[in-house]
Amino acid sequence: MADHRLSRASEHLHYDWNRDREPVLRVAPGETVAVACRDAADGQLPRGATVADVEAVDAPGHALTGPIHVTGAEPGDTLAVDVLSVEHEGVGWTYVYPGEADVGLLPEEFPDGAVYTWDLEGDVGHFVNGIEVPLAPFPGVLGVTPAEPGPHSTTPPRRVGGNLDVKHLTPGATLYLPVEVAGALFSTGDLHAAQGDGEVCITAIEMPGTVRLRLRLADRDVDGPRLDPAGPYAPPGSDPTAVTGLGADVNEATREAVRGMIARLVDGGLTRQQAYMLCSVAVDLKVSEVVNDTVAVTAYTGVGPA
Amino acid sequence: MADHRLSRASEHLHYDWNRDREPVLRVAPGETVAVACRDAADGQLPRGATVADVEAVDAPGHALTGPIHVTGAEPGDTLAVDVLSVEHEGVGWTYVYPGEADVGLLPEEFPDGAVYTWDLEGDVGHFVNGIEVPLAPFPGVLGVTPAEPGPHSTTPPRRVGGNLDVKHLTPGATLYLPVEVAGALFSTGDLHAAQGDGEVCITAIEMPGTVRLRLRLADRDVDGPRLDPAGPYAPPGSDPTAVTGLGADVNEATREAVRGMIARLVDGGLTRQQAYMLCSVAVDLKVSEVVNDTVAVTAYTGVGPA
Repeated sequence: MADHRLSRASEHLHYDWNRDREPVLRVAPGETVAVACRDAADGQLPRGATVADVEAVDAPGHALTGPIHVTGAEPGDTLAVDVLSVEHEGVGWTYVYPGEADVGLLPEEFPDGAVYTWDLEGDVGHFVNGIEVPLAPFPGVLGVTPAEPGPHSTTPPRRVGGNLDVKHLTPGATLYLPVEVAGALFSTGDLHAAQGDGEVCITAIEMPGTVRLRLRLADRDVDGPRLDPAGPYAPPGSDPTAVTGLGADVNEATREAVRGMIARLVDGGLTRQQAYMLCSVAVDLKVSEVVNDTVAVTAYTGVGPA
Repeated sequence: MADHRLSRASEHLHYDWNRDREPVLRVAPGETVAVACRDAADGQLPRGATVADVEAVDAPGHALTGPIHVTGAEPGDTLAVDVLSVEHEGVGWTYVYPGEADVGLLPEEFPDGAVYTWDLEGDVGHFVNGIEVPLAPFPGVLGVTPAEPGPHSTTPPRRVGGNLDVKHLTPGATLYLPVEVAGALFSTGDLHAAQGDGEVCITAIEMPGTVRLRLRLADRDVDGPRLDPAGPYAPPGSDPTAVTGLGADVNEATREAVRGMIARLVDGGLTRQQAYMLCSVAVDLKVSEVVNDTVAVTAYTGVGPA
């Protein structure tokens, strides 16, 4: 159940971020929304799709559902997004673009392209050779709209979130985003039935489905994406917390994630040196995403000040 | 209990890798050894150490215990190292070198140096402000001796292992290494009571202690460090497996880890494209280490062919 429902009809979709876009729904802080989403290929792939079908997809960006206006949200506020559930519809696709599309981690080594249609059944996705992949569905894109005027690509993750591809944003997780425009103008999409860290071939199990979220204002200052992760990858210790660093490459993103975690630990009362050392012994770093121009590395910890 | 015990007396230690070094112990494949190790500072830090104490440490490399000759091991064989237990002695140190030592992830931002002496009690390390760090002890260095003649620094991890700093090498884990010299000439040291991924400030909780290992020859070809990880960070699915990629930076190391995982999945019967896609949806990437010139990224999965 949810306070609101939003369909994936064309009039609820957009393919870039733009502060001048009219909201398709208005919610009060604390309300829940069931958001239906198209898959990353905008619903254009059939079951049993071929590489030619992948090449024929005509979409100017991720198909995002929204934007949703949150009453009273103002620039400088923090929007908390509680992920409550993510439901698949029995099908998903993973694909490698042919070599002329210079994307993914190893484009020169995979020139031919490939596509696989998944049957999704309960908590399992069926792959070749009897291999079963445990599903852990989450939205690849969760974001609010940047303040800067004009259209912005949906591809790179940003300070305000967007295409984060952090696989820990499963039900039970909360994402915190800095609001830059009145009403926040939140959108989501690009649902993944399962994803490995890095999303190395450029796609996860891309699926249509419905994500149920609670949107609320949090009494917490953030200057980039922050998350309370969910799932079995959380480090030991209670109440894990995480910081996503973005950069032009993994080296830079790693530094940004650690700087962010240090800042968080310093906020909790440590000196910078104490925080730096605690990072060295009790903070995990996972490569969240390496294929979207701006890459993301997430730092996690289950210890330290609240 | 172990078939052999090796003390950390000076005559059992070395500070570089060298194929011409005489073994200090000979074991048969499948035997166990309890190896006593000094901490990374060669036992030179007192409880309550100061930065001056850290600067005064005089050691030409990691203090490694060994080398251990494994009967019958020949170049081209694979040595399997089962980590059976790692015991601390109640004390450990974490430190940041002063700025002139250009090491760690953020040297310019931490010019002053710092050091903390940990009390280790059971499964917990006590930090400032009542913070407790769960301990998960493992050896930072586990390696066999490179074929190339002459002395080699203990700092960079290599094809034959060494200073891997992979925090999943806790009891229950197995490390597979390619043998390059007769007898393998295995050594270990640099024990960590706990470490965050990346070991960002250059040290973990550095401790003296005893690691109990089983050394055996495995019927498996490897061309670099491979591990069956242990611990709560293993991905869902049974029988997780992992591949460590090394590179000059994190981008390169990430590519190497994924190439290695693809090769492993292809060995299990997948096509390269299937393996690439499975990596994208079901393989995790963790930054194992970013501070040792050569960096290490480890790819994990709990699904796929055996």
